[in-house]
Amino acid sequence: MARPSLREKLASSAVNTLHEHGFKGCSIQDITEAAGVPKGSFFNHFENKEDLAIDALRRYFESARADLLFQEGVAPLERLKNHFSYLSDLLVSFGFERGCMLGRFAAEMAQDYPRMREELRSVFETWSNGVASVLRDAQAAGEIDPRHDPVQLARFLVNAWEGAVIRLKIDRDRGPIDDFFQTTFKVLLK
Amino acid sequence: MARPSLREKLASSAVNTLHEHGFKGCSIQDITEAAGVPKGSFFNHFENKEDLAIDALRRYFESARADLLFQEGVAPLERLKNHFSYLSDLLVSFGFERGCMLGRFAAEMAQDYPRMREELRSVFETWSNGVASVLRDAQAAGEIDPRHDPVQLARFLVNAWEGAVIRLKIDRDRGPIDDFFQTTFKVLLK
Repeated sequence: MARPSLREKLASSAVNTLHEHGFKGCSIQDITEAAGVPKGSFFNHFENKEDLAIDALRRYFESARADLLFQEGVAPLERLKNHFSYLSDLLVSFGFERGCMLGRFAAEMAQDYPRMREELRSVFETWSNGVASVLRDAQAAGEIDPRHDPVQLARFLVNAWEGAVIRLKIDRDRGPIDDFFQTTFKVLLK
Repeated sequence: MARPSLREKLASSAVNTLHEHGFKGCSIQDITEAAGVPKGSFFNHFENKEDLAIDALRRYFESARADLLFQEGVAPLERLKNHFSYLSDLLVSFGFERGCMLGRFAAEMAQDYPRMREELRSVFETWSNGVASVLRDAQAAGEIDPRHDPVQLARFLVNAWEGAVIRLKIDRDRGPIDDFFQTTFKVLLK
């Protein structure tokens, strides 16, 4: 097996460090130490911490199994449930300690880091569009009311999920996840 | 008019500074400077920055017009709308630059500040209970389906609001607020 490049080692480890501590909760030194690379090598690969965080956000989103939204042979609402179940299993596996990187970076960085803000805007839009596409399929399949605006409903759901994850960091139990699933699938999408 | 005490001057100004910059985005010195009080006076009044932030959170929540949820002579869903409209007018008045202090502190502090986490838990619970009480009234008045669990629905809505506010800091337009109002009042609470 080829050795991962230094850049790859740094970037993939940073996803973890930034997810655990947030952007303001760790320094470049914390990140290089956790990755086991020399601190001096950082600026050979990234312009600054924001640049690395943008790379980490992309990797994080790529691992969020948005593909489950498009899985063939699965009914639309089932696909939506599978996607959010995957995300909630992740949250549980971290003992509710970590939230969602999107929400965390949004809270920490949207104000002062325009490049990150633009990246967040783009990632949220891609995610919302995926959910909207499932909702459209659900309407076509007669699973939900065809009068709903799928784009608006999708954005609402993605935001509601982010809010539930915020609450999770406070309550530290499945409550906010259960509230999300129950309300989404038993009330809203009925 | 009596002069506000130094403590009061510091505490009321801190709500603003902490709301604008977040807990990690401003120092004790930034806070005392903005309040126009000597930095050295800080520790006469507060144990540490967390202590002051907890005080600020309480003041912030007291100003959130939760009383609109209980206004006499107003139909239940109208009260709910009035409360969230008050909050959204505030967000708009700050040009979408500031989010909600609850969500911000949750993202920044829930992990490492157990006293703040407990305070956030309590404030979110009080707020959710207020919303649940309105939803119960709405059920009694025949405005919404009596089979919904008002407590669960209330927690979901409060979290969905927090998520919308997070998204607002990225999109910087009314979109996430409109998604919240449309979905909540035209789809969910129908």
